[in-house]
Amino acid sequence: MRVGYFQFRPLFGKVSQNLLTVTSALRKVEADLIVLPELPFTGYWFRDRAEVMALAEDPDDSPVIDCLHALCREKRMYIATGFTEKRRDKCFNSAVLIGPEGVLHVYRKMHAFLHEREWFDPGDTAPRTFLVKGARVGMMVCYDWAFPEVARMLALRGADILCHPSNLVLAHCQGAMLTRCLENRVFAVTANRFGADKRPHGELKFTGKSQIVAPGGVLLHRGPPQRQELYVAEINPAEARDKHVTKTNDLLADRRPEMYVDLVDRI
Amino acid sequence: MRVGYFQFRPLFGKVSQNLLTVTSALRKVEADLIVLPELPFTGYWFRDRAEVMALAEDPDDSPVIDCLHALCREKRMYIATGFTEKRRDKCFNSAVLIGPEGVLHVYRKMHAFLHEREWFDPGDTAPRTFLVKGARVGMMVCYDWAFPEVARMLALRGADILCHPSNLVLAHCQGAMLTRCLENRVFAVTANRFGADKRPHGELKFTGKSQIVAPGGVLLHRGPPQRQELYVAEINPAEARDKHVTKTNDLLADRRPEMYVDLVDRI
Repeated sequence: MRVGYFQFRPLFGKVSQNLLTVTSALRKVEADLIVLPELPFTGYWFRDRAEVMALAEDPDDSPVIDCLHALCREKRMYIATGFTEKRRDKCFNSAVLIGPEGVLHVYRKMHAFLHEREWFDPGDTAPRTFLVKGARVGMMVCYDWAFPEVARMLALRGADILCHPSNLVLAHCQGAMLTRCLENRVFAVTANRFGADKRPHGELKFTGKSQIVAPGGVLLHRGPPQRQELYVAEINPAEARDKHVTKTNDLLADRRPEMYVDLVDRI
Repeated sequence: MRVGYFQFRPLFGKVSQNLLTVTSALRKVEADLIVLPELPFTGYWFRDRAEVMALAEDPDDSPVIDCLHALCREKRMYIATGFTEKRRDKCFNSAVLIGPEGVLHVYRKMHAFLHEREWFDPGDTAPRTFLVKGARVGMMVCYDWAFPEVARMLALRGADILCHPSNLVLAHCQGAMLTRCLENRVFAVTANRFGADKRPHGELKFTGKSQIVAPGGVLLHRGPPQRQELYVAEINPAEARDKHVTKTNDLLADRRPEMYVDLVDRI
């Protein structure tokens, strides 16, 4: 199975132009599943919630989704992408899984970074997994990396591959994702953007270094910090189904969920 | 605060000799808290449960604990050590926190590695933290590292320092513990043994490289793979109480425990 990412520099607010950048790049690729960064069509560094609402789209009525869907149909591929989602008076920092058959799933980012609490409604979707060409795929968004709970829930739901659209500004995520793939024995594709959102109210820089990690925490590839890159790796998703670290130790079966009650309480 | 570890080579079954090795080393040290490896007095590679029961001790009636307690009183220090614990007809792979005032806590390893399921009863103690000279200390044992649930529960219970007695045989733990200290913003002291348990039924080699990690996943020190080392670092436990990764992001407050129900179910 060929999975990859497209690391690029979205231009803030230029939805059509960003969409063209993405479709032009993906039209050339031979891949089964491509991951795009977080909020890759609108940009990230919003002024306020009103600006989010003005740029966001309802996935059921979205020219961006329609265009990506057409591309998936044409190329018989799947795309996991960040998406600025509007639903009536609500909006979410979401990830959408799209295939030839249309939208398979919308996941709404669970953990709010920086000013996202002012801009977005809190994510209200549980982590779930979906079949993509025989592989089970789950999605998490950017800052979700810091919460081992998310990758763990996806692994418990059978994820072979974590698709991880990101707009990273710190340097910690790439190392932590090695541990996520070690402790859950899954693949992970972190698609980050580069460049900066330069806005009248300030500037935010993004750090690139998108990466693909294999079960066991093995780094298959890490991209450059500030350059566009479309990268595809050949992987065998079945490797993620053997959770053994020794002959007698299975990392999911060895869990003691009855002992973990503290994790679901506000302590 | 001076926290450290004693990495050494226990001799299988030679409880008195191992105790002497430990007390001789610790008598010279200036420290507030020292972490010892997993099962450092009995050794690890048991033949069967009967052998465990023959070597294990009840902490309430244990020459080993009494001796360590006397040392803690004399040196006004604390010791977190692995311990082969017997309670009537049960036995556990445990960690004991001992200070001048006696035994503060016994934690029973939650996750069984290799043949431990045949040798020990399953750990039945919840992760808890205890005050040691103003710092809040929690314990986890060896393979617990692979389960982000354990370090997380200790952090939620206020741990500043994770004491981590270990008998590591794989190479994954040291990197993963950086992530534990990154995602929870705590200190961690992993005390590993080196050498091998050479027994009639086989041999098991241990990998050393004990380490001390600071909040943010900063490696303060990593020891040699196959050499005795008593190492002490000066740390400020209060650093572990600021959970911020950005001005607006607190890694524990940002959690969404109401969304984590999958973690306590057998899926």
